[in-house]
Amino acid sequence: MSIKKKTTIKDIANVLNISPAAVSKALHNDSRISEKTKKAVKQVAVDLNYQPNHLASALRKGKSNLVGVIVPRTNSHFFSSVIQNIEEVLNKEGYNIIITQSNESYKKECDNIDTLLFTQVDGIIASMANETIDLKHYEKIKSKGIPLILFDRGENNLNVDYIGINDYDSSHMIVEHLVKQGCKRIAHIGGYKHTRIFNNRIRGYIDALKKYNLPMEDELLIESSLTTEDGRKKMTQLLALQNRPDAVYVAGDYAALGALQVLNERGIRMPKDIALVGFGNEPFTAMVTPTITSITQHSSEIGKQAAKAFLEHAKKKVVKQQLNKIILNAELIVRDSSNIKNS
Amino acid sequence: MSIKKKTTIKDIANVLNISPAAVSKALHNDSRISEKTKKAVKQVAVDLNYQPNHLASALRKGKSNLVGVIVPRTNSHFFSSVIQNIEEVLNKEGYNIIITQSNESYKKECDNIDTLLFTQVDGIIASMANETIDLKHYEKIKSKGIPLILFDRGENNLNVDYIGINDYDSSHMIVEHLVKQGCKRIAHIGGYKHTRIFNNRIRGYIDALKKYNLPMEDELLIESSLTTEDGRKKMTQLLALQNRPDAVYVAGDYAALGALQVLNERGIRMPKDIALVGFGNEPFTAMVTPTITSITQHSSEIGKQAAKAFLEHAKKKVVKQQLNKIILNAELIVRDSSNIKNS
Repeated sequence: MSIKKKTTIKDIANVLNISPAAVSKALHNDSRISEKTKKAVKQVAVDLNYQPNHLASALRKGKSNLVGVIVPRTNSHFFSSVIQNIEEVLNKEGYNIIITQSNESYKKECDNIDTLLFTQVDGIIASMANETIDLKHYEKIKSKGIPLILFDRGENNLNVDYIGINDYDSSHMIVEHLVKQGCKRIAHIGGYKHTRIFNNRIRGYIDALKKYNLPMEDELLIESSLTTEDGRKKMTQLLALQNRPDAVYVAGDYAALGALQVLNERGIRMPKDIALVGFGNEPFTAMVTPTITSITQHSSEIGKQAAKAFLEHAKKKVVKQQLNKIILNAELIVRDSSNIKNS
Repeated sequence: MSIKKKTTIKDIANVLNISPAAVSKALHNDSRISEKTKKAVKQVAVDLNYQPNHLASALRKGKSNLVGVIVPRTNSHFFSSVIQNIEEVLNKEGYNIIITQSNESYKKECDNIDTLLFTQVDGIIASMANETIDLKHYEKIKSKGIPLILFDRGENNLNVDYIGINDYDSSHMIVEHLVKQGCKRIAHIGGYKHTRIFNNRIRGYIDALKKYNLPMEDELLIESSLTTEDGRKKMTQLLALQNRPDAVYVAGDYAALGALQVLNERGIRMPKDIALVGFGNEPFTAMVTPTITSITQHSSEIGKQAAKAFLEHAKKKVVKQQLNKIILNAELIVRDSSNIKNS
């Protein structure tokens, strides 16, 4: 069986022996067409399983009611929850969303953007891949006049709407918490320095150490891809130091999980020997042993605000001069892995 | 600032004072156009940031190189992992994927299908929402001659490619394991009976009880939406029975997690008082206390096979008479929650 040819307006016209233009008018309830003809056309359309080509119609109208979402990966509670909340807000306003993932790859992110532009999305909400440095693909979205909203991993240089948390201050909160627990040698397994949020976390860490007169040693600050596997590797690296840290702040929960596995495997007690803090408040941080202290990123609020920012653009139909920059206050959730005073 | 108007072929033609047809030919490297003109056209195209409308081109060619994926939710390791593997296989063949989620809603699933058809996908790979009973929206995909591949949650009636595991046999494995641990009163918190995979698990459970001469009592078989919240509720319901079960087999890990929480909160020991088994082998089953015995669903293999099934259709360009029905053998991963003999 070969693929069925689609029913066209011409097919309907042939059956009824009228012009394709008359069929089109009838389908659009044009007043110049008699009720009898309209009824006949619609009946034949149903009989032949006629389906209007929405895409062609979107091309004409310049509106698809679709919003594209790009995330590094869907397999993280943070990104899933942001997506969920974007979707809830946009569905209510008659928009559907389509999701693509970059898998932290710059090339894949370029493909994602091409795909979304291809599908004629009315807007794009994105969080950048780890690998992304060059921003031309994002400039392309802007140059087409399509609203672009960034969340979590964004870039100041792009000059678009951004929703995130105060990463710099979060690092301060974490270091302060560890200092209060009595820690004196605090290491940081950070994300890539070229990514703004991770850079902010690193700067926050360094400045907080200064504030509390703690040593900022190069061997205690390590750049990581923040996967679970890399968390294992970087914790192993820290344990090989002659002068081990007494606390490790990891810039992502998945890498913190890897660090925790290594510590548990070696029988190193948390928080007594080494206190551990993650970032992101992924649900598993409350499930593992010991439970991991972490920072909540307010994923629901980020999703809602990102959707609202898009809707503002969509409703005004102009690219606004005034941009939304929404920075939410993160919260520290203290759990067993760093709670020395109560342990 | 109003939205920038897109550069068209006409704009390029105006600059060079040639016909739009000549510009189009030049952009498509037509041999009737001189090299000099081609070069000039391409330079102006770059200067004006001209971007050809891929969608219009896809409409003409009838191929978008896009594959749509529909999942109940992305926030589950099983579905994320299937998506990941579909993507890896298809990317290599030049296809990009777009993801939509139904959130277990029938209406949302209908919208997802409309969205994907709207974006002119070359194929759809889907796992059904809990709510889905009526299959008209899936019939619509078939009627358009677009390859449809179902995985995990599928329907025999649709007569399309299907990749999944042997749910019926998996229930047998679980019941057999629990019988060997000495359990005599085995309850089942199952999924919705109208969903084929959950129905198969329920049938497997009932038949295995018969095989081992164990009581099949109505109060021990409960239908659930299988969310964590509902798992809590259904476990509470089982604990309220005059004659409590000594083992509970839950048809999904998220609901098993809810059940575990309730048991832990009430100080009921697993597996000594009640043995617990989940389904899906979500990563958290190995993180919680006690770790949960579960069934692996071979998500990587399901993803790869689903992608390959689509590629077969795409390459043959015909709807095959012979369908792929791939049923993988699941495996039981025994952990602390049901390992009575070693506890």
